[in-house]
Amino acid sequence: MNQPWTTKQFEKRLRSMAPLYHINHPFQQDMHRGALTREQIQGWVYNRFYYQVSIPIKDSILLSKIHDRETRRHWIQRIIDHDGREGEEGGIEAWIQLGEATGLKREDIVSLEHVLPGVRFAVDAYVNFVRNHSWEEAVCSSLTELFAPTIHKQRLAAWPENYPWIKAEGLAYFQNRLGEAHRDVEHGLALTLENFKTAEQQQRALEILKFKLDVLWSMLDAMTMAYVHQTPPYFNTGLGSDD
Amino acid sequence: MNQPWTTKQFEKRLRSMAPLYHINHPFQQDMHRGALTREQIQGWVYNRFYYQVSIPIKDSILLSKIHDRETRRHWIQRIIDHDGREGEEGGIEAWIQLGEATGLKREDIVSLEHVLPGVRFAVDAYVNFVRNHSWEEAVCSSLTELFAPTIHKQRLAAWPENYPWIKAEGLAYFQNRLGEAHRDVEHGLALTLENFKTAEQQQRALEILKFKLDVLWSMLDAMTMAYVHQTPPYFNTGLGSDD
Repeated sequence: MNQPWTTKQFEKRLRSMAPLYHINHPFQQDMHRGALTREQIQGWVYNRFYYQVSIPIKDSILLSKIHDRETRRHWIQRIIDHDGREGEEGGIEAWIQLGEATGLKREDIVSLEHVLPGVRFAVDAYVNFVRNHSWEEAVCSSLTELFAPTIHKQRLAAWPENYPWIKAEGLAYFQNRLGEAHRDVEHGLALTLENFKTAEQQQRALEILKFKLDVLWSMLDAMTMAYVHQTPPYFNTGLGSDD
Repeated sequence: MNQPWTTKQFEKRLRSMAPLYHINHPFQQDMHRGALTREQIQGWVYNRFYYQVSIPIKDSILLSKIHDRETRRHWIQRIIDHDGREGEEGGIEAWIQLGEATGLKREDIVSLEHVLPGVRFAVDAYVNFVRNHSWEEAVCSSLTELFAPTIHKQRLAAWPENYPWIKAEGLAYFQNRLGEAHRDVEHGLALTLENFKTAEQQQRALEILKFKLDVLWSMLDAMTMAYVHQTPPYFNTGLGSDD
């Protein structure tokens, strides 16, 4: 029987997976240093929107699995943050406005027509993971948020200079998420540290976090194929959607 | 109200999607013309094995949704073909032998350790599609088999010359599937032509077939990122599984 890590050690192990965060994906690195074209940024906005619209669905499934009222009262805020409510537009609307700031049309974004199959499969894998696992495991899979504040800050800092053609008000999404992600991850992390007690459970938590890191990395892989290597699905058949 | 196509027209429409089959994916085309290295062929065998082992699970879910005994008696043969039975090894074992013929070790293949996340997400999307839809829609999603005989024949014809280092007995999988795929697709096609009657249903069948073509194409995209562009997951973090 292995000894479990202390809470502090366990948290350190979770955080030690930071290098696998998609902040290190070449597509993201190119984005950060201003090397992406308008079309590449737009492709990313189109595809990442599928993640945005899937998150409240994922969180609704998760919510349905929590039997403790206090925990639900806390978790429901994530859905509200994304969907908005009277007088507050929320993250999905902020993402659409980011898309408009890059020159896209609202109807083209919400149509999901430009979402690549590989991105769809990765995001759906995340939603299905939450559907098919316990709420404790589902909460653990949200912990890529541990690493999100840095990526939001990077974008806020670098985009105005690197992509001056993106209207500044489009960046509100990243600004809003900075505060939300900080609060969310405190909660998700506390629940995970509390619920994964044995050495085996702690190991399982690391595997779950790895799965979620795979989802994010794989999304950028699909975008790299389509927008960097210029090989979107079916490009050489004359029947690709953008041919 | 749109007029439905005749059965003949509907079949023709389904078959007209052949150009989107992964036979036209650059990775497959490179494979066919002998341009892949041993490592690239081995990567493909590792990853495609995840599809092989998922198929009997997919077909078991499908079987559980069929309430007609005659149809189940027919469909169950697919599971038996893959899993084998006393005295007949079946498709999964044949695939392992293909892997061994390319120089891989059985235990490395069955460990699934070399399966790329993007391949896993695509294959799981197929299994989940079958889980979450009617058996008629699930049957329709198997119709990429319409296009499979050509790809099997191509491999049997071209590999001995292009990849003389692959032991000939390894090609038994493709030989076996030639006969099985022919029989399977007759059944799947007949059921689909029978079950998708209205214009809307027929349109839906084309969408389902497109989804399944996306699955197969997306698998080869993930392999292209890893083995052609040499950018497997996390390659630039020093923490990639093959670093």
